[in-house]
Amino acid sequence: MLEDKNPLKTNISQLGEFGLIDHLTKNFKLKQKTSIRGIGDDAAVIAVEKGMQLVVSTDLLVEGVHFDLSYVPLKHLGYKAVVVNLSDIYAMNATATQITVSIAVSNRFPVEALEEIYAGIATAAKLYHVDVVGGDTTSSTTGLLISVTAIGQAKPEVLVYRDGAKENDLLVVSGDLGAAYLGLQVLEREKEVFKVNPNSQPDLEPYTYLIERQLKPEARKDIPKLLADLGVQPTAMIDISDGLSSEILHICKQSEVGCNLYEDKIPLDPQVISTSEEFKLDSTTIALSGGEDYELLFTISTEDFPKIKANPHLTVIGHITHKKEGTHLITRANTKIPLIARGWNALQED
Amino acid sequence: MLEDKNPLKTNISQLGEFGLIDHLTKNFKLKQKTSIRGIGDDAAVIAVEKGMQLVVSTDLLVEGVHFDLSYVPLKHLGYKAVVVNLSDIYAMNATATQITVSIAVSNRFPVEALEEIYAGIATAAKLYHVDVVGGDTTSSTTGLLISVTAIGQAKPEVLVYRDGAKENDLLVVSGDLGAAYLGLQVLEREKEVFKVNPNSQPDLEPYTYLIERQLKPEARKDIPKLLADLGVQPTAMIDISDGLSSEILHICKQSEVGCNLYEDKIPLDPQVISTSEEFKLDSTTIALSGGEDYELLFTISTEDFPKIKANPHLTVIGHITHKKEGTHLITRANTKIPLIARGWNALQED
Repeated sequence: MLEDKNPLKTNISQLGEFGLIDHLTKNFKLKQKTSIRGIGDDAAVIAVEKGMQLVVSTDLLVEGVHFDLSYVPLKHLGYKAVVVNLSDIYAMNATATQITVSIAVSNRFPVEALEEIYAGIATAAKLYHVDVVGGDTTSSTTGLLISVTAIGQAKPEVLVYRDGAKENDLLVVSGDLGAAYLGLQVLEREKEVFKVNPNSQPDLEPYTYLIERQLKPEARKDIPKLLADLGVQPTAMIDISDGLSSEILHICKQSEVGCNLYEDKIPLDPQVISTSEEFKLDSTTIALSGGEDYELLFTISTEDFPKIKANPHLTVIGHITHKKEGTHLITRANTKIPLIARGWNALQED
Repeated sequence: MLEDKNPLKTNISQLGEFGLIDHLTKNFKLKQKTSIRGIGDDAAVIAVEKGMQLVVSTDLLVEGVHFDLSYVPLKHLGYKAVVVNLSDIYAMNATATQITVSIAVSNRFPVEALEEIYAGIATAAKLYHVDVVGGDTTSSTTGLLISVTAIGQAKPEVLVYRDGAKENDLLVVSGDLGAAYLGLQVLEREKEVFKVNPNSQPDLEPYTYLIERQLKPEARKDIPKLLADLGVQPTAMIDISDGLSSEILHICKQSEVGCNLYEDKIPLDPQVISTSEEFKLDSTTIALSGGEDYELLFTISTEDFPKIKANPHLTVIGHITHKKEGTHLITRANTKIPLIARGWNALQED
């Protein structure tokens, strides 16, 4: 029979809500010593270690807004949904310990599609050492939506907020910027090519780093640990989800300070430079506004500069000024122009 | 100009993502002493009191699946989204302290619609003494979706799970059952009448309790306190979101016990009885399978019976048996029939 041709299409209604949750989460084991109770009760229960405070962050990823399933594999989507939330926990200088995952999904997705998403979630949870302790799976009338809440812990004196930057502090960024946005541009272009000629075989070799940064971003779990090892307590910190300029402005606004950002200091991967040229885009604009890099941006006291200056993961890109001096980009041509937030904005793009 | 006729239609894209979140959440003040940091940083920060464990629950409400905006006012929707999550915290015998709220919304909703939802969220947060400490607002391609994560605290020895029911324990329920489901039936009927004759003026007077239970449910914040005051520590507890039979079966399965539920003990409001007759529905079936009552179902040791027997909020509806005896309903005619879970199921209804 025609209907039996693809045996891997199990309708989600066949399992029912509880059956489906059981099926998808049965392999999630609790490994964190602070995870007292996970999925299967009215709520998860978490022990908080002595002297620690709890950190909680939540994010929604919506099909057609935050991702396009025509080029995002479901497993990558599950992985990314976890990673982008963990990034917020690391941006508090905290250790991530648990997540909850809720998924709304229309009937056009078979159980096997959800299994793929959960496989990605499980991979990320394992790699980042967090337990999946709760969640909800429900229907949607159209499309797919993933809501993740990430939970972490840290000592109060270790936590870093956005509002602690002080005049003369150095502005530091981890990794490099702009690659995720360019990865998206490459994928969008290939999608258009595919529409015209479904048999075309794209050569994505020159863009591997960009595409990986877009489809399988990593959160900087290593940075809070690195900073602790170096004996550096940042004064302010934020993760770069919306583009460097937008995040710098968040820190400056909340800390009531100004800044000078130096264009020539912004760390760019060679693929970002070459692909920007190919797309006739300005690589600085990409780094400033591209977003989805999930690097950490933070400020440190100048006294801490010797501790980080030799570190290949960290780049000093500017410094904090008095609020009256405003927020500026110092270009390669040594011109001072106002820094504008033009980060990717889920509501404006709609 | 025609476009200016309704000045209360502000497109959400006019404010942008950050502007919108600021606008909607600017009136949320932190009142709980455990709320260290709320909206506006990468994550919320929560202090955990000495000796307490943390309880976390998350739920999604999806337009067209969990609610129908043709008869659910937006303010009520915001209120209900909070309440149904808090109910899970109380079902752990814990105190709810914080929530995060994420909303995905299509452009057909103006800012004023989101303001209504947030007004309902604020009303619930105030009444239940919880702080809104985080959230996300984003576009959806269609419809409205609300994801709430509720956070609470309790001492480990006070927490109640689903798996602690013991043979001979009494099965107890708060309040009365079935009203919310019948309220939905009344609203669905009026919607159909309205479609045929938009000028009809329905007389909803005989259904006020039912409609209130459907549109503005309350979570049993009072029950954990009442139990503490009475000196009763339940052995197992769950909230009734999917119907009494489904919830009893959850407790029996997880506690590895059986039960006898007595039909004549199930507490029903007079409006449930009269409206069941009008709709030619069996009121026991409604109570067993209706769902959305958000009452608490729990088991207690027989020794604790004297402490609760005179309480008007609590009804003993059955008792726990050995697992081998199975899970049964003892009907008014004194027949013993197997208890079947036919609770409302968001995935099967799709």
